Amino acid sequence: MDGENVNSNGVSETDARGDKAAGAAVFPQNGRGETKTEVTSASRGCSFCGWRFVWEGRLIKCYKDSAETVTARMASDRDAWYYNMNHKNRGIAIIFNHENFTNPKLKTRCGTKTDCENLASTLRSLRFEVYTYFDASYSKVMSVISEVRNMDHSDNDCFLMAVLSHGEQNIIHAYDSPYQPEDLWHPFTADKCPSLAGKPKLFFIQACQGDRLDPGVTLMKRTETDSGPMSYRIPVHADFLIAYSTIPGFYSWRNTQRGSWFMQALCEELKKHCYSLDLLTILTFVNRRVATDYQSNVPGNNEMDAQKQIPCITYMLTRLLKFEPK
Amino acid sequence: MDGENVNSNGVSETDARGDKAAGAAVFPQNGRGETKTEVTSASRGCSFCGWRFVWEGRLIKCYKDSAETVTARMASDRDAWYYNMNHKNRGIAIIFNHENFTNPKLKTRCGTKTDCENLASTLRSLRFEVYTYFDASYSKVMSVISEVRNMDHSDNDCFLMAVLSHGEQNIIHAYDSPYQPEDLWHPFTADKCPSLAGKPKLFFIQACQGDRLDPGVTLMKRTETDSGPMSYRIPVHADFLIAYSTIPGFYSWRNTQRGSWFMQALCEELKKHCYSLDLLTILTFVNRRVATDYQSNVPGNNEMDAQKQIPCITYMLTRLLKFEPK
Repeated sequence: MDGENVNSNGVSETDARGDKAAGAAVFPQNGRGETKTEVTSASRGCSFCGWRFVWEGRLIKCYKDSAETVTARMASDRDAWYYNMNHKNRGIAIIFNHENFTNPKLKTRCGTKTDCENLASTLRSLRFEVYTYFDASYSKVMSVISEVRNMDHSDNDCFLMAVLSHGEQNIIHAYDSPYQPEDLWHPFTADKCPSLAGKPKLFFIQACQGDRLDPGVTLMKRTETDSGPMSYRIPVHADFLIAYSTIPGFYSWRNTQRGSWFMQALCEELKKHCYSLDLLTILTFVNRRVATDYQSNVPGNNEMDAQKQIPCITYMLTRLLKFEPK
Repeated sequence: MDGENVNSNGVSETDARGDKAAGAAVFPQNGRGETKTEVTSASRGCSFCGWRFVWEGRLIKCYKDSAETVTARMASDRDAWYYNMNHKNRGIAIIFNHENFTNPKLKTRCGTKTDCENLASTLRSLRFEVYTYFDASYSKVMSVISEVRNMDHSDNDCFLMAVLSHGEQNIIHAYDSPYQPEDLWHPFTADKCPSLAGKPKLFFIQACQGDRLDPGVTLMKRTETDSGPMSYRIPVHADFLIAYSTIPGFYSWRNTQRGSWFMQALCEELKKHCYSLDLLTILTFVNRRVATDYQSNVPGNNEMDAQKQIPCITYMLTRLLKFEPK
């Protein structure tokens, strides 16, 4: 560690309003107003069970930081530019494909079978072990996640999950119930799934994040590592990538025959560049393809017609990801 | 357009719960429950002023889609892999540097001057025209943004803004008031700032997003474009990158003498690779450096000591961004 250690100058502070280090726990608030400050004891948690709780007049949240002693295998050398993609297997890919819903307000998602077949075939050609789940209930989604997280991924390069469904801001719909997108990736943090620690965990979500429309603008042309230290520590939330088909608050579009714009573009760019470019570059080109090649076609509805879409890629990756042929 | 047009098969649907195309507006809800469906007229907005409003028993939001007829200069050819970084100027860089706050609960941010000087010097060496604002009030932040957004960026490659401050989830603190991070970038969408349409808009936020701690895990080593079409349309939200020093819900750390981990790592990696690697790759290495090189040093506080951090990069970029020497 050449960062903060007891021999370095200065001490660590956080950029929260207050600081637990200063002896007071500060509880964030959703709005713009003031937050409450209470004594730290409330956030230190129970010394018997190890759970922490946040108390603000009533119990706000309860969680367990269980990672303090977690140790995992080093998947890549500390200073490697690229993730090690030379494990025995590529890894597991889970696709939750939702076409129908119990809630009658949720329309049948025509075209999603095309998306699912397209994505499964693309991932199989990349040597992923692909499992697809059609119209899974919420409990099925959670049980699959629990099962996969408890598997041994030691011989795998990475993990991938895709969800094709209806959504709203911070909501995805399973067959019978809505749930929060975080439920998909939180089980795979390095403390909860140590055999994926230090390996890429990739999530692709084809779903709306709201009902806003992006009408677009028109652009007019002008006339003019060998070996390193034996161990290192990483944050448990490192090495995630979450690729959302659209930005928060906005619609995500799907062609009723050819599938969603995002999945069409993702599969096309993956097939084209998977062994020659790194994933962030490929996803940049997915963005470009969705942004420039598509616009909505909703005959007879001026409000919805000729609208645009831009995907939203969030990453906590710590190395470049380039697939190697297997 | 080879995507959705009137000659293609199939029509466009969205992955929202319902679909305005079906004649009903659907209003998203924050929780997991049901949403209300009302007639479209409520979302069509006022035919006099052009504003749209969302009504759910009471007025939920009010906004204006003003981009439908916006046209801007084409900054990069439609199929170019790289953003055009050969404009006359690199562009404007704004740094809001916050050390002190009127709210007595917000501690002085020791070390932030080091961050600001480090970042300003790094950006100047990249030929940005850098403006720094120390302890700006909320109204100052907003007036600077309004001024910059109304400038003519036609001869600039890109735009950059950095904020160094205290924060919570979905909150950043100005000198005298908290505000939402979206207030920083929403004014720069392609419809609102056409001279930046199709150009990278880069935002770097050094601030907490909550009060959770990441204790980390230990990884142990095993012993084994010339010319294209004359015009194309893009979503108004394309070409943004938002680099947050930490993930939602978590602390962001700062050394009281050497500055924040994120700004230290960002400046170091930019200086090292700015002309040889693209920005997403450089930010991947910033992630790695923050994740592996740093851990908190809070003597006498076991709860806060030896904690880890991972930055969170979100991008809607549509091309690779590689700085060219100027």
